[in-house]
Amino acid sequence: MIQPNIPDSDLPRVVIVGGGFAGINLAKALKRAPVQVVLLDRNNYHLFQPLLYQVATAGLEPDSIAFPLRGIFKRQKNFIFRMAEVKNINREQSTLETNIGDIRYNYLVLATGSNTNFFGNKLIEEHAIGMKSLIEAVQIRNYVLKQFEESLLLKEEAEIRPKLNFVMVGGGPTGVELAGAFAELRKYILPKDYPELPLHLMDIYLIEAGPRVLAGMAEETSRKTLASLEHIGVKVLTNTAVKDYDGKNLLLSNGHVIETQSLLWSAGVKGMALAGLPEDALLPNGRVNVNDVNLVNGTGNIFAVGDIAQMLNDKRFPKGYPMVAQVAMQQGKQLGKNLQSSLKGGGMKPFKYTDLGSMATIGRNRAVAEFAGIRLSGYIAWVAWMIVHLLNLLGFRNKLVVLINWSYRYLTYDRGTRIIIKRGAANIVKLRQSVYQADPLTP
Amino acid sequence: MIQPNIPDSDLPRVVIVGGGFAGINLAKALKRAPVQVVLLDRNNYHLFQPLLYQVATAGLEPDSIAFPLRGIFKRQKNFIFRMAEVKNINREQSTLETNIGDIRYNYLVLATGSNTNFFGNKLIEEHAIGMKSLIEAVQIRNYVLKQFEESLLLKEEAEIRPKLNFVMVGGGPTGVELAGAFAELRKYILPKDYPELPLHLMDIYLIEAGPRVLAGMAEETSRKTLASLEHIGVKVLTNTAVKDYDGKNLLLSNGHVIETQSLLWSAGVKGMALAGLPEDALLPNGRVNVNDVNLVNGTGNIFAVGDIAQMLNDKRFPKGYPMVAQVAMQQGKQLGKNLQSSLKGGGMKPFKYTDLGSMATIGRNRAVAEFAGIRLSGYIAWVAWMIVHLLNLLGFRNKLVVLINWSYRYLTYDRGTRIIIKRGAANIVKLRQSVYQADPLTP
Repeated sequence: MIQPNIPDSDLPRVVIVGGGFAGINLAKALKRAPVQVVLLDRNNYHLFQPLLYQVATAGLEPDSIAFPLRGIFKRQKNFIFRMAEVKNINREQSTLETNIGDIRYNYLVLATGSNTNFFGNKLIEEHAIGMKSLIEAVQIRNYVLKQFEESLLLKEEAEIRPKLNFVMVGGGPTGVELAGAFAELRKYILPKDYPELPLHLMDIYLIEAGPRVLAGMAEETSRKTLASLEHIGVKVLTNTAVKDYDGKNLLLSNGHVIETQSLLWSAGVKGMALAGLPEDALLPNGRVNVNDVNLVNGTGNIFAVGDIAQMLNDKRFPKGYPMVAQVAMQQGKQLGKNLQSSLKGGGMKPFKYTDLGSMATIGRNRAVAEFAGIRLSGYIAWVAWMIVHLLNLLGFRNKLVVLINWSYRYLTYDRGTRIIIKRGAANIVKLRQSVYQADPLTP
Repeated sequence: MIQPNIPDSDLPRVVIVGGGFAGINLAKALKRAPVQVVLLDRNNYHLFQPLLYQVATAGLEPDSIAFPLRGIFKRQKNFIFRMAEVKNINREQSTLETNIGDIRYNYLVLATGSNTNFFGNKLIEEHAIGMKSLIEAVQIRNYVLKQFEESLLLKEEAEIRPKLNFVMVGGGPTGVELAGAFAELRKYILPKDYPELPLHLMDIYLIEAGPRVLAGMAEETSRKTLASLEHIGVKVLTNTAVKDYDGKNLLLSNGHVIETQSLLWSAGVKGMALAGLPEDALLPNGRVNVNDVNLVNGTGNIFAVGDIAQMLNDKRFPKGYPMVAQVAMQQGKQLGKNLQSSLKGGGMKPFKYTDLGSMATIGRNRAVAEFAGIRLSGYIAWVAWMIVHLLNLLGFRNKLVVLINWSYRYLTYDRGTRIIIKRGAANIVKLRQSVYQADPLTP
């Protein structure tokens, strides 16, 4: 019979749901605390989301941006990991209902992160492509490469165009980076791999509802980014919203229609709250109201950190902190310190966000970055972007593999991982004695 | 409308089915020949099968042993690739029926390779795990890692044992290498990743129907291999056949039963002949009878090379050449030369196999190798094994990534790629405008 089998302990148990930036930083911060740390995640790895777009565009292998959670904590004695899907919080009994059985907690920390937000548009949700998980990025890679293969099998321009047009929605860092990567594919890879392909039929769009791309950065940065994107051939449409999409025709707010079979949606994210929280803690955007020490409103021992938490203690951010890695890491660390202090009978210190800046890469030798009042662009920003991302990637092996891929790509103008992994008739699919019923044994 | 869209040419067209070792060596050998080379493969990459077992055991990322076929031939002017599944050969009209339409040929070359052979045992075929494709290797990795995760959720020894027992069937290089890799997982990875796991319940078996492992090599080599395997804790059973398997209980010919949920089958392969060949060319083992210049019996312009071809012109190999990479590479090259000679009005030279030796790795610092009358074992053979495999791997990027993984593993006793890639609720699955109908857009 399946049971969580978490060893009993006299120490208070802190259960963390989610092994993203917030969750692992919290678990690390509790390394020497007199608690039992239980981390739950539906996957067995920590995902470095900022580089997902490179997996989707055949620049990096999926394995190089994922790091096994057990590996991160193998030297942490008070740490226990279980691969589990949480279904419900039972606050009265202080237990979590999961697919591997009930798990008791003394302190519960939600670090469940965010998912793609289609703002209720069902038609778009059905046909557009989100990119928040590793498998989505691999599927995008497969899908994109198949679009190229299939374009070769068509004669009519009207049939080829929607296959070769790629539309990014959302002018934030993800949209900008994806659009840049597609422009690089078109310039450096496709002419060599597909000399027969009518590349003049291929358009790359970036659509932003607001007045400028990278709205979170300075106006000058937005202007430079726009100029860079246009220089490499991306068609940027600002002040333009997506009205409708049926998988083939994309209707814009200005009345224009773009024919495309590939709509990549990075126009918004929403929190992933769990069932069982107090009604008045839940927000329409899927986030959870927390006070300035990340305690969920209306609870005494449930915390939320990272994307899922909406904290309103900073005038600079009247709608809560941005849903980015930096906030998640800082909140995880801070909550770790606060829990330790509280266990010793001390108080908790309110969270204070230190904005370390932001950056986005546009393409080869092109990026923008802002930190400590300095604005960089071009080659220097691009190098800074790479260094920051390499340093933050977990694991020495991953760092090296990513560095090799980047060096190789830079020197050869090639992308190594453009393979289509198909499901095929693999016989192991039939093996099904898995606990994780909802999830068959297929990758 | 879908059509192959292969440009018309005045030159004779050589259609090669399969981008394995035989297919790509043939296509390369035709680089300067006055022919149009059309390569068809169901995947868009060449797979380096000898390292599949390392993907299955979390030692290498899948992308590092696959190389995009378009990349290999991007400088070959007379080369055209199409991702296609061949359904039938229409010999009267000299066309191939494929899922992307009919394709005309002047010369047809079958290089379709081999697949797992369960020798007609349906029950075993249903429950055992084969390993011939990249997706199978990834699925094995997912499956194996899940066995460990799930073992933690059980209390009864009787439930845990079948999850932790791994049985390899077939004492050839694949079985030996898999068994060795599992022994390394047990020794170096599992104690750190799963300190709670009752590893004393875990057994690794290698089962061989014949009297010795690595039967293709010298008796002394078999003895050394056996000793090495036993030293690292693999239970080797020779002269033992698999009688029956229901997914949980494995019945052996000696009457014993092993409880296991993981039966990895590498006890045999069979050719993958295509429909439409002359009846008398087809052999029960799925291979195709060819003469000494690889011409398929009963045809005038259809050739077969590599695993699929059974050629009986060498007394050392009364059942045909072994189904290994070396034969495939040599036959591909030779047929390329023969076709060129024949187009110039010359004759074809009979194929002669040059045995360059064989090798198998057992684990850290342990391998066996035989070539040019020399027998190596231990550390030297292990280094030789790595060098040979690295040199034969296609692509500079792949070589570097594999080298880094091996160095990392050697120095840290760690394996970097032990992540479980689940399918999950990825929304792109719904996108279905794929030509490749049989194969949804999932990896």
